[in-house]
Amino acid sequence: MAADPTRADKFSFGLWTVGWQARDPFGDATRPPLDPVESVHRLSDLGAYGVTFHDDDVIPFGSDDASRAEHIARFRKALDETGIVVPMVTTNLFTHPVFKDGGFTSNDRDVRRFALRKVMRNMELAAELGAETYVMWGGREGSEYDSAKDVQAALDRYRESVDFLAQYSIDRGFGLRFALEPKPNEPRGDILLPTVGHAIAFISSLEHADLVGLNPEVGHEQMAGLNYAHGIAQALWHGKLFHLDLNGQRGIKYDQDLVFGHGDLTNAFSLVDLIEHGAPGGGPSYTGPRHFDYKPSRTEDFDGVWASAAANMRMYLLLKERAQAFRADPEVQEALAASKVGELSQPTLGTGESYTDFLADRASYEDFDADAVAEKGFGFVRLNQLAVEHLLGARG
Amino acid sequence: MAADPTRADKFSFGLWTVGWQARDPFGDATRPPLDPVESVHRLSDLGAYGVTFHDDDVIPFGSDDASRAEHIARFRKALDETGIVVPMVTTNLFTHPVFKDGGFTSNDRDVRRFALRKVMRNMELAAELGAETYVMWGGREGSEYDSAKDVQAALDRYRESVDFLAQYSIDRGFGLRFALEPKPNEPRGDILLPTVGHAIAFISSLEHADLVGLNPEVGHEQMAGLNYAHGIAQALWHGKLFHLDLNGQRGIKYDQDLVFGHGDLTNAFSLVDLIEHGAPGGGPSYTGPRHFDYKPSRTEDFDGVWASAAANMRMYLLLKERAQAFRADPEVQEALAASKVGELSQPTLGTGESYTDFLADRASYEDFDADAVAEKGFGFVRLNQLAVEHLLGARG
Amino acid sequence: MAADPTRADKFSFGLWTVGWQARDPFGDATRPPLDPVESVHRLSDLGAYGVTFHDDDVIPFGSDDASRAEHIARFRKALDETGIVVPMVTTNLFTHPVFKDGGFTSNDRDVRRFALRKVMRNMELAAELGAETYVMWGGREGSEYDSAKDVQAALDRYRESVDFLAQYSIDRGFGLRFALEPKPNEPRGDILLPTVGHAIAFISSLEHADLVGLNPEVGHEQMAGLNYAHGIAQALWHGKLFHLDLNGQRGIKYDQDLVFGHGDLTNAFSLVDLIEHGAPGGGPSYTGPRHFDYKPSRTEDFDGVWASAAANMRMYLLLKERAQAFRADPEVQEALAASKVGELSQPTLGTGESYTDFLADRASYEDFDADAVAEKGFGFVRLNQLAVEHLLGARG
Amino acid sequence: MAADPTRADKFSFGLWTVGWQARDPFGDATRPPLDPVESVHRLSDLGAYGVTFHDDDVIPFGSDDASRAEHIARFRKALDETGIVVPMVTTNLFTHPVFKDGGFTSNDRDVRRFALRKVMRNMELAAELGAETYVMWGGREGSEYDSAKDVQAALDRYRESVDFLAQYSIDRGFGLRFALEPKPNEPRGDILLPTVGHAIAFISSLEHADLVGLNPEVGHEQMAGLNYAHGIAQALWHGKLFHLDLNGQRGIKYDQDLVFGHGDLTNAFSLVDLIEHGAPGGGPSYTGPRHFDYKPSRTEDFDGVWASAAANMRMYLLLKERAQAFRADPEVQEALAASKVGELSQPTLGTGESYTDFLADRASYEDFDADAVAEKGFGFVRLNQLAVEHLLGARG
Repeated sequence: MAADPTRADKFSFGLWTVGWQARDPFGDATRPPLDPVESVHRLSDLGAYGVTFHDDDVIPFGSDDASRAEHIARFRKALDETGIVVPMVTTNLFTHPVFKDGGFTSNDRDVRRFALRKVMRNMELAAELGAETYVMWGGREGSEYDSAKDVQAALDRYRESVDFLAQYSIDRGFGLRFALEPKPNEPRGDILLPTVGHAIAFISSLEHADLVGLNPEVGHEQMAGLNYAHGIAQALWHGKLFHLDLNGQRGIKYDQDLVFGHGDLTNAFSLVDLIEHGAPGGGPSYTGPRHFDYKPSRTEDFDGVWASAAANMRMYLLLKERAQAFRADPEVQEALAASKVGELSQPTLGTGESYTDFLADRASYEDFDADAVAEKGFGFVRLNQLAVEHLLGARG
Repeated sequence: MAADPTRADKFSFGLWTVGWQARDPFGDATRPPLDPVESVHRLSDLGAYGVTFHDDDVIPFGSDDASRAEHIARFRKALDETGIVVPMVTTNLFTHPVFKDGGFTSNDRDVRRFALRKVMRNMELAAELGAETYVMWGGREGSEYDSAKDVQAALDRYRESVDFLAQYSIDRGFGLRFALEPKPNEPRGDILLPTVGHAIAFISSLEHADLVGLNPEVGHEQMAGLNYAHGIAQALWHGKLFHLDLNGQRGIKYDQDLVFGHGDLTNAFSLVDLIEHGAPGGGPSYTGPRHFDYKPSRTEDFDGVWASAAANMRMYLLLKERAQAFRADPEVQEALAASKVGELSQPTLGTGESYTDFLADRASYEDFDADAVAEKGFGFVRLNQLAVEHLLGARG
Repeated sequence: MAADPTRADKFSFGLWTVGWQARDPFGDATRPPLDPVESVHRLSDLGAYGVTFHDDDVIPFGSDDASRAEHIARFRKALDETGIVVPMVTTNLFTHPVFKDGGFTSNDRDVRRFALRKVMRNMELAAELGAETYVMWGGREGSEYDSAKDVQAALDRYRESVDFLAQYSIDRGFGLRFALEPKPNEPRGDILLPTVGHAIAFISSLEHADLVGLNPEVGHEQMAGLNYAHGIAQALWHGKLFHLDLNGQRGIKYDQDLVFGHGDLTNAFSLVDLIEHGAPGGGPSYTGPRHFDYKPSRTEDFDGVWASAAANMRMYLLLKERAQAFRADPEVQEALAASKVGELSQPTLGTGESYTDFLADRASYEDFDADAVAEKGFGFVRLNQLAVEHLLGARG
Repeated sequence: MAADPTRADKFSFGLWTVGWQARDPFGDATRPPLDPVESVHRLSDLGAYGVTFHDDDVIPFGSDDASRAEHIARFRKALDETGIVVPMVTTNLFTHPVFKDGGFTSNDRDVRRFALRKVMRNMELAAELGAETYVMWGGREGSEYDSAKDVQAALDRYRESVDFLAQYSIDRGFGLRFALEPKPNEPRGDILLPTVGHAIAFISSLEHADLVGLNPEVGHEQMAGLNYAHGIAQALWHGKLFHLDLNGQRGIKYDQDLVFGHGDLTNAFSLVDLIEHGAPGGGPSYTGPRHFDYKPSRTEDFDGVWASAAANMRMYLLLKERAQAFRADPEVQEALAASKVGELSQPTLGTGESYTDFLADRASYEDFDADAVAEKGFGFVRLNQLAVEHLLGARG
């Protein structure tokens, strides 16, 4: 049976998760505000090691300097009392109406400048609190109408902003790495960096590309019908998995932000297997925080809030346990070999094989019996059945 | 009224489009095979300037050398007689059962080697026929089951293959550019480079990144719920729009390959506007072939096949005409200005503005009246209504 | 060019549409509240003939009797001054947190009883204002978790509620007809009557089935990837199209509530053609209000609100004009005949043909040459191209 | 650990499942044809109790009478040798090109007549073989283009066909019940009865409604983003669950037909719980065949085919075991009570409570403290976590 969560598991939560008041597009809040200080203590008691926040989660929008300092002091005290760390910080560039057409890419230049300043101010706090990662979710960077947004100009402004802030971090010695969080839509009709792929592509154009990576969220990729574990594998392959957001989503629809594992359970298993163990053929795994970015369902009171927070961690640990058993099972190893999963790590060309050599290898083409090779089955269904049985705890 | 298509419009068609026999997952062919020579003549008569093909479209899989030469000779003759050009060629790495787990990324190394050789052989023909672009649609490069494919190893093999083939093209002086065609799924459960974004990201990792770009297809992006015109804009921004595939899709479902404009008409309008005129704030437009990759519906006989081919070109020309009127309309210009669409091309920072200067600009933050700025509307709905009215031909 | 809207066009708007303050799941309101009295006057000026409302749109939740009466009096005065009618009324069973698990089907019986009473109270007002239709959108009737809702018990309670309210209307002589509004999800993970089909099926089980029909919404069906015009056709076929909600949606994602025609334009054209002209082979068309249930985008100020309201009506009139031209075009008539669209209205069996007769008709089977018949094309692509050209205003 | 499958489990398979040659829209067959006789023997050995078939699966399209008789005799012999039963039979109205615009609703009346005769002929065989259920999947009954199909006329023809065939079954004493199988799209752009709901609605209009029910398929509902277990619950509620098709689907995309449980595992668990145990508050469960309608992946050889067949049954039995433990767990019972799941079975009105009584009950409205009631959480997340833990085999 899976153990209880400990700090070594590196579980972290956004303050906005347990603190979500459950206002939705058709309904008013079902829960009162939650004091960040209480959240820190409760999450600590449940076994988390870290919390993360948007500036406005800790310091209400528009606070004056004195009030700001006071909010920070109270929050720091809670961190000190609990030993909870702040591995990641982010900025709210979406709630206030001024950001209705975006922050870094609003058509209104004054808004863009305000957005940059808001981030700069909060980066300073992030560095003070020891955060290593600064997340940028561009949820409002997008449009509903194709003619209303010059996408190429928007990407120019996005690049200008990220490079400027990276330079600011370098110059001020903040030591931050930036993690972009893609999402295909909602709250905008189309968001500018809709998937893991688009965000990595964008990063490749940056001056400070080395400082910028990703914070992919389970539900966001699945809202585009994409395989989250595949997205994470590609992000790892590019060396860009700086952080991640775990939660649950049940298919292509509005952003559900369910508890991790309460959405696509099978893909959650693959994901945990990947980030815990790396690719079957080797390759990097993920060592950063296991960060939950979910929403306790609107039907829940505070008991439900804390039960749901605990459920995220328990789901992760259960899946980790099953993934370990999967990897350790000799029958799985045999099935992986039968499916030639490992053979894919072998280069297609031989060592030092030139194209002249290759063209001379009649076995590779002229004498290749395509029909005969095609007859062999890969045994993928059997392998998947073994995976599902491990997931179900049905193999000892 | 839109003019008839001419060679100057650069319309091209895949031989596999008009030649599709209309076999689908639940039904047998409804049309007999179509001789490529006839297709060339018919498409020429309809006003196309080019055709494209997979190796197996012109030379049946497994043909011996003599038969191959004969097929090519007949085909060349048709090109010569009509003046039809071959701007793009591609390889079929998906129909034969040997490719059931992919070509470049099959778990079976022998299959990978055969795939590379098949491409090499066809690249030579492409170069001989004067093609500038070599398309790679990795439709079988993917998986149904997460544990059956080591995605990172697969990306290694993909990279190995593309870089190897690019080097081969360089060394042999083929002068080809390569264009990857993303697709999220079908015929595999998850395909490795599912969107425009993932493919650009992948290209950024290549040794020969400069020779490799994209061939995005309307329906493929829309199968992931993504905005095709946005994807094309991002591809242009990265300098990676090497070729494109025009067709129609009605939402997230199986790949429909309808006539261009018979799917999401509004986005088709935005697309034509973008590739004909470039971004509103400037930026590259697309000058390559307007290539149709569609399937004449299974309900049609050959009359329907040719009517559908003509419909693609007519749709493009009608949308082009409407996009021109949209751009030329002074009320549209005024509405674009009111929506600050052009203001997004203005850098957010001033020329030479350092972050110290910026932090000192109290107007950008301390004195910025967020509530007051937030009150101003962007007028996007009015702008969109103007666009739709132009699309409907309802404004003069 | 399409005419300006008049009362004869029967355009109506929900007060909650223009009055939407643009609060979304990630953002605060961008517009102040709008006085229903102002909305009535403005919509009247724009050419609408009716308004519709939820109880809470006119009378804030929790108002005492005196305050309620005052709100109603002011509202009635605006109606009287403008001549605006109230063809439909509905109840808000979703905003207040008490409805977090639904109204008629909340697991909590006390909530269910409160919901019924809330509806009863508002039905009385609806009758007083002359409404003919009472809409029931069960947006909260659903669940996120399969074990949390006994779907069969929920359908029992739904039936109990609708039958009870129908009986109440009969007994009190309200003369109301009820219209259920399906939606697949949002704000619940899965909503109980997700599509037009499920709702008609449910109605067939009611004691008062004759008094209950549908209010299908464009975007709601499209959120399930379904064809709205097909859904409306099936609703008409069952005699259940009591009311409808026009708006725009761009594919399977969150509920966008765009202006009508700003989503899937092609399907909007088919819809207008259908409800204006009935099926090609005859059959009922729709004579009720053309009701817009949309949201002015969050980026807009009040100028944008009124521009968007006008845009809905203009889109409808433009599409109506094009649909008329489509029906009147002799080439379209010829293409419809070539596609045998009318032949589908002919019964498959002959008049009085028994199965014995039919089995004896060798032409129908034994002598039927399937291959020969299969060769004939249906010409559907040509027909569709004609439709799209009419939509584009490209045929005279 | 779950037991091996036995005849008492009532597992059945379509001959077309294991016999699928793995031809897909982009690829040729990867497996040779499979003799139905072999399939019967192999499935019997694996523990199945029944097989089902389309006419053309056993008797190739166009066979003459002698050849037909011979095919049937061989097949019967295999049934007799194994004791395998034929609980369901269906007709292929989709593979041959003659059905390219549908069978019962083709625009071509001759095709419609041929389709009816093809069904009549096969119903006779179904009755002879003792089948109780006759399935009708109208996969080709639909359209790609809105103007190409008069949906209301199509529904007329559909009704005419089903009522005619039901009458034929009655008159001939076949004793068959009919089960319609909905699907939203593929191979047509839009299929006429897209979901469980639309099909039940349609049935309510039939003369022989009592003889007609549903055969819902897991993947088909999920292709519309709908909750399959909800659909089954509604079908049970209407008394229309005559048969079902179990398989797996990973979201909204092409029809995947994976092994049952290899798609949405969580919903598969809810489904098995529902059909084995009925609704939590009572209500019918399903006693018919557990029928698998899946496709062994194209990557598999015959070993993989039989492994996948076995996997379907094993998944079902594993899920059944977990569902039993879920229902038996006292903590689950307590959580269900805390979530008031059972309270939904209690009528909202009291026994004999008139609306006058109800209006007089001030507790239900005037004295109802909505804010206080709203504060109580439903505990749904905790309940779901218990369900997922049982699914994972993590609770003893």
